[in-house]
Amino acid sequence: MSAPEPFDAVDVIRIKRDKGQVPEDALRWMVDAYTREYVADSQMAAFAMAVLLNGMTRDEIRVMTDAMIASGERMSFAGLGKPTVDKHSTGGVGDKITLPLAPLVASFGVAVPQLSGRGLGHTGGTLDKLESIPGWRAALSNDEITAQLRGVGAVICAAGTGLAPADKRLYALRDVTGTVEAIPLIASSIMSKKIAEGTGALVLDVKFGGGAFMRDVDMARELARTMVALGTDSGVATTALLTDMNTPLGLTIGNANEVRESVEVLAGGGPADIVELTVALAREMLTLAGQPDADVEKALQNGQAMDAWREMIRAQDGDPDAALPAPRETHTVLAPASGVLTRLDALPFGIAAWRLGAGRARAQDPVIHSAGIDLHARPGDEVQAGQPLFTLLADDDTRFGRALDALEGAWEIGADAPASTPLVLERITA
Amino acid sequence: MSAPEPFDAVDVIRIKRDKGQVPEDALRWMVDAYTREYVADSQMAAFAMAVLLNGMTRDEIRVMTDAMIASGERMSFAGLGKPTVDKHSTGGVGDKITLPLAPLVASFGVAVPQLSGRGLGHTGGTLDKLESIPGWRAALSNDEITAQLRGVGAVICAAGTGLAPADKRLYALRDVTGTVEAIPLIASSIMSKKIAEGTGALVLDVKFGGGAFMRDVDMARELARTMVALGTDSGVATTALLTDMNTPLGLTIGNANEVRESVEVLAGGGPADIVELTVALAREMLTLAGQPDADVEKALQNGQAMDAWREMIRAQDGDPDAALPAPRETHTVLAPASGVLTRLDALPFGIAAWRLGAGRARAQDPVIHSAGIDLHARPGDEVQAGQPLFTLLADDDTRFGRALDALEGAWEIGADAPASTPLVLERITA
Repeated sequence: MSAPEPFDAVDVIRIKRDKGQVPEDALRWMVDAYTREYVADSQMAAFAMAVLLNGMTRDEIRVMTDAMIASGERMSFAGLGKPTVDKHSTGGVGDKITLPLAPLVASFGVAVPQLSGRGLGHTGGTLDKLESIPGWRAALSNDEITAQLRGVGAVICAAGTGLAPADKRLYALRDVTGTVEAIPLIASSIMSKKIAEGTGALVLDVKFGGGAFMRDVDMARELARTMVALGTDSGVATTALLTDMNTPLGLTIGNANEVRESVEVLAGGGPADIVELTVALAREMLTLAGQPDADVEKALQNGQAMDAWREMIRAQDGDPDAALPAPRETHTVLAPASGVLTRLDALPFGIAAWRLGAGRARAQDPVIHSAGIDLHARPGDEVQAGQPLFTLLADDDTRFGRALDALEGAWEIGADAPASTPLVLERITA
Repeated sequence: MSAPEPFDAVDVIRIKRDKGQVPEDALRWMVDAYTREYVADSQMAAFAMAVLLNGMTRDEIRVMTDAMIASGERMSFAGLGKPTVDKHSTGGVGDKITLPLAPLVASFGVAVPQLSGRGLGHTGGTLDKLESIPGWRAALSNDEITAQLRGVGAVICAAGTGLAPADKRLYALRDVTGTVEAIPLIASSIMSKKIAEGTGALVLDVKFGGGAFMRDVDMARELARTMVALGTDSGVATTALLTDMNTPLGLTIGNANEVRESVEVLAGGGPADIVELTVALAREMLTLAGQPDADVEKALQNGQAMDAWREMIRAQDGDPDAALPAPRETHTVLAPASGVLTRLDALPFGIAAWRLGAGRARAQDPVIHSAGIDLHARPGDEVQAGQPLFTLLADDDTRFGRALDALEGAWEIGADAPASTPLVLERITA
């Protein structure tokens, strides 16, 4: 016979519904009982809606996160003998920053365990991008991860399914019940996985704008503050940058083309915005790792970061010198007039790349590594009539139509350059 | 292949979550799709919580109610050739008012279709009470109901399961998700069944206080106003009385003993509060039926109401002269001191009667018709030390212990009479 339950789900729901604070033991029970399927989806859905509308205190968010961590296994890199720092981005279009960033930071003797996911919807997945590299494998055992962190220092691999299983079930539920946008639940979802992964410190890239999960900068700021507080309360030193995601990052959106652009940055070149954000995040990570004065720009110029990249790719059976997959078909859009490119919107370009095959609609679908979009100009650039603006990449020319539909009205050529907006808007610390 | 769905549940949930008004077609779809099990329990639970916290407009409540009516069959008594008026009580302890009320009103040539439910929890069920009468049956066909309304005029019988099936599913969901207390959902739940039953007019007895579903008088008033507006908007003339349920109604709580007390009222006697409420509700019903000047008190005194009662019971195969079941065991509690009975709380007395076997814990359990509590004094009455205060009635003396536990602190003898409070606090009309 199973033990009697110490709480009743309806009582817990009512506390939050009536704007109260759920006691620690009751909240822990709620998450645990939901993982055991004793608390029903309908009950957790009502609770999630009450959280979305009535909020959670800082203490409640910490307990909720801790309970989700406790629902699964927890990794530890305490025995490595070097500091560990992780980075998490809330997701954007053309966001390949993890690729140059992890080896760059690791090249300073810091362990960077980047346990990542796959893309779903209009934002790409780090693992999908790296799988463009022939031979490279995403799945590593815990022993392989530890060995690679000890040696190369940087690991980008698939997060184990054993981490925070409560979060996995809750996330799927929120997706179908209109409760995704609850900041306490977003924060505990992200942070439970990151803390369970055993990182010692964490830098968050919280994006706002049309191509971001949080369109509104105030919501993004609140999420960033909530996660920084939560990391701090959970013993993980955490800093956040609030960054602009109205325009795609860099000149590539896809998989293989984003790897190519990342390698350009590691070779000391690449688009200015990618370099700027990579350097800014690397500085934050190295500051948390005790190296505030590390010369990260030099490490991009002198081959130090590139060496770490090549080691990291090889350690996971990838060939850093192999040719990347190329698209069978391309379709280039030309500037219809001369002027200044005033706008190029992240969300429709993300959707177009997805429709070209770079992303997946269902979790079980494959991605096409060569598919995506190469940009030839960025907002602020002068363009001449007839000059290439961007090129669609696909394996099948039947895909161009729906991609072009998504791009209708997604960019604009005008007379005056747009007002310049900072890429990194704010730095948020505990 | 089934037709594509015109709406998405997440979009509908989001509208209410963001304090918007759900368009009529979207709300109708939501209820219909939930009935078809296309919309999941978890989605409806999130929606119900958003309704509880953000409310619904008068229009939304009307549409929600209409959609629940449309989910099932709808009765009509338009062909009877006489007005129909129904009464609904939100439920209380010792509330047997329907029993004398229905024949009293019917005795004025009005049709009273009282389609009722069974008791669950601490409030009794009208059908359970009437089933104390040997031979009486609750289940009637629609043809039997119509014939009895045409003849006797009064019918108290089981509501068909085909009425508002969406409400049935939604009510069970609300019960386990902490969303029972949403006034728009309570109002649409009650009114969808009453309107589907085909009554021409409706009088609501909305109770407040410790033994009522709504403890708070302001909440009860809001519910009453919402239901009166809803009835009016749906073409059913509706009036509500706001009545006190801090003390049990009358001197009996149970089944057979409540029938006995009802017959006393029909014979021109009975406790003053039962007579007062029966008369007040009968006046409202007869006013809506076009007889504002009917002398209802006289009809209780001169046997007119009693004749209708006897006809009504016989029409459903009951014997109005048969002996009612008597309890095998009784336990009388005596006054420990002399003074005034200052307090006798409805909720614990309702729970005690339920534990004695008068009510059921699960829908499929039987009730014991002879079980319950007879009161020998009411708040305001002077009592002498050693005088009987109340008697517990059961078939099995092992039940007394837990019933007495419920009554701990549930009544009080003091020096001064309590302040008198009105039984009928307010009358609410459109």
